[in-house]
Amino acid sequence: MSTAWTSRYALRTKGLKSSAIRELLKVTQNPEVISLAGGLPAPEVFPTQRFQEACEKALRDNAPAALQYGPTEGYKPLREMIARHIARYGIKAQIENVLITSGSQQALDLIGKLLINSGDRVMVEAPTYLGALQAFNVYGAEYISVPIDKDGLQTELLDRALRSGPKFMYILPNFQNPGGTTLSEGRRHELVLMADRYGIPIVEDDPYGQLRYEGQHLPTLLVLDRENLRRDNGYSIGNVIYLSTFSKTLAPGIRLGWIVAPPDVINKFVQLKQAADLHTSTFAQIVAYEVARDGFLDEHVRTIRNVYRERRDVMLAALQEYFPPEVTWTHPQGGLFLWVTLPEGIDCQKLFRTALEHNVAFVPGDSFYASNHVATPHMRLNFSNATPEQIREGIRRLSLAVKQQIAERQTADVSL
Amino acid sequence: MSTAWTSRYALRTKGLKSSAIRELLKVTQNPEVISLAGGLPAPEVFPTQRFQEACEKALRDNAPAALQYGPTEGYKPLREMIARHIARYGIKAQIENVLITSGSQQALDLIGKLLINSGDRVMVEAPTYLGALQAFNVYGAEYISVPIDKDGLQTELLDRALRSGPKFMYILPNFQNPGGTTLSEGRRHELVLMADRYGIPIVEDDPYGQLRYEGQHLPTLLVLDRENLRRDNGYSIGNVIYLSTFSKTLAPGIRLGWIVAPPDVINKFVQLKQAADLHTSTFAQIVAYEVARDGFLDEHVRTIRNVYRERRDVMLAALQEYFPPEVTWTHPQGGLFLWVTLPEGIDCQKLFRTALEHNVAFVPGDSFYASNHVATPHMRLNFSNATPEQIREGIRRLSLAVKQQIAERQTADVSL
Repeated sequence: MSTAWTSRYALRTKGLKSSAIRELLKVTQNPEVISLAGGLPAPEVFPTQRFQEACEKALRDNAPAALQYGPTEGYKPLREMIARHIARYGIKAQIENVLITSGSQQALDLIGKLLINSGDRVMVEAPTYLGALQAFNVYGAEYISVPIDKDGLQTELLDRALRSGPKFMYILPNFQNPGGTTLSEGRRHELVLMADRYGIPIVEDDPYGQLRYEGQHLPTLLVLDRENLRRDNGYSIGNVIYLSTFSKTLAPGIRLGWIVAPPDVINKFVQLKQAADLHTSTFAQIVAYEVARDGFLDEHVRTIRNVYRERRDVMLAALQEYFPPEVTWTHPQGGLFLWVTLPEGIDCQKLFRTALEHNVAFVPGDSFYASNHVATPHMRLNFSNATPEQIREGIRRLSLAVKQQIAERQTADVSL
Repeated sequence: MSTAWTSRYALRTKGLKSSAIRELLKVTQNPEVISLAGGLPAPEVFPTQRFQEACEKALRDNAPAALQYGPTEGYKPLREMIARHIARYGIKAQIENVLITSGSQQALDLIGKLLINSGDRVMVEAPTYLGALQAFNVYGAEYISVPIDKDGLQTELLDRALRSGPKFMYILPNFQNPGGTTLSEGRRHELVLMADRYGIPIVEDDPYGQLRYEGQHLPTLLVLDRENLRRDNGYSIGNVIYLSTFSKTLAPGIRLGWIVAPPDVINKFVQLKQAADLHTSTFAQIVAYEVARDGFLDEHVRTIRNVYRERRDVMLAALQEYFPPEVTWTHPQGGLFLWVTLPEGIDCQKLFRTALEHNVAFVPGDSFYASNHVATPHMRLNFSNATPEQIREGIRRLSLAVKQQIAERQTADVSL
């Protein structure tokens, strides 16, 4: 009987709860609903024709290899391409420093597997990426949350947090999900120094780094850490594991991400990955390589930047136009998300239901906190997936729901 | 420093050791070496042209979906196709019973995650699939090994094994890897009855079930369990989780497998899979669906059967011709492997090195045992990947190495 199974579930399943986002995305299947909820790229800019050519070429010149088992580390030319790519940002990485993963989410799972024993603490930003919390929860993680402000992680609060002994820090420096904030250069320096001083390493998650719409690229924590250490000519040491992905620059449906780390750390990940799924689809890797090569990736990233910059600007203008003055929001310099702060006392879950009545969806902010502390009410809004027209209309509808909730709260205040 | 990481590895990494097979496959990259070691399908029969057409169609008719994020459960038409497929074997499965995984290896990882707490026991066959041991080791599994004979798992030894309280049983009923044996029908009945009596469920791993070269298809444990229980009209209960894959029937490079289980068990796997890699490549799933549809899969399986049957027969004939009489082997009715038993006292690792000097590779048998007990020396030989000519020549070379080792052992005996 099915109870033959349920009575046998491991402790690990205690960390599982049906994801709020997961349930929410089901609701938003309704085509009447404008969804500003998910983190989906714009389907209009997928390089479909380039994928057609890449598939044709991969299967013409590179079958049987494209269809056969491959090495756990990943397709060599793709790993080399990634090593070359990060060399531009100042990292002397070799192919030995790069492992291909089945999306960045698998990197988070492998990190949880490698580093977290049940009860271990992980330092995270508050708020932080929900998928990382889900990945780490499976391994019984506890959390130390350090709040962010408009310049990202508040490093002045780090000292106390690090004294309480986290196993590692999980940081999204660029256009944070969900905050939309970017860690300032000064704080980046401070963060890598603290990591080295306390011997507490950093997982740097950078899915959106290339999608900057204004301002200057800031050095990654990986680069700053390498500069800080300067103890070898090659790349055998480091306090930072760096993660990125093709999900936001090529297409998420191919499920391709990567980890950059010292070779002996990569080797441990390789062993864990072999036990987890042998290797990432050879076919997807060869096709992605053929799509990205010869400068196409850079060219395509420029296209995406233009499309997303426009959508961000439309969203910012619509918020300005429609939203009441007591609501504020971040001004992201890149990425996919914007973070809205609502007046105290608004019930986000109630607002979510009201918004759905107005045929618009967002993600309630409380999903993004590790701890259960009652946070200021927030909404995460995505501006990459909907068209500019839908974004404008979506924000208009959302403003009605927000005003309704503010009015209800005031009525409630009066009636007290 | 990299020690910042290594000092932080979780207990989980204790179960890790560099896989013997992994290291071994590196050695066999030398093109002079005929490898009978791996478990690779024949590249000559990959349906490359069909993949070309499928990619073209998927990207023409089904992009953006093929390139976008998708549901964790998998691509609906593919899940429906699998449900229809297993209905032929007598299972009234619905789409709710099917989860797409990133190869069968991911199914094993999810099973370990869902069911194994450190120190839990798993009942396995001796010998058994190395990849399953690797997947379960990560979660701290201990093992109860029950030997197989020419009719598969020795069910008369089950009573004692089940009294010692394993969390579940892991069984490969068809053309077992590495044994090449098939569980007899009588023992299948006995096994599902015992599972129900003791309340100890079964994970049925069936990657090769369709690749039968002689004899009649035997009912899966899943079917027998359903017949045994007969407690509902739908499929909400069951002692068996069933795993299979497209790796051996279409291509392993697309990394597509599936789990069949009661819906509430599937739901737990979905939550764990979401945390592990969000979902399996949408693109790979849609392409595989387009490849397999309209009867192509069945037709292609017939082609593969003919190719592999010939290779198996060539290997059996060559063993008969070249090997000394004190060596015996199994006669697999299907699958990819044959299991050779060597005379007592042969050192398999030494034989492996001697074989490499003769430019031929196999997998030493001791890799396939959960416990460290010294087993009779064995070799696993693969007959799917090399051509008939290579197989014949490979067996000839291997016979030289075997004879050399037997002679050395006798010399050693005399000199004692």
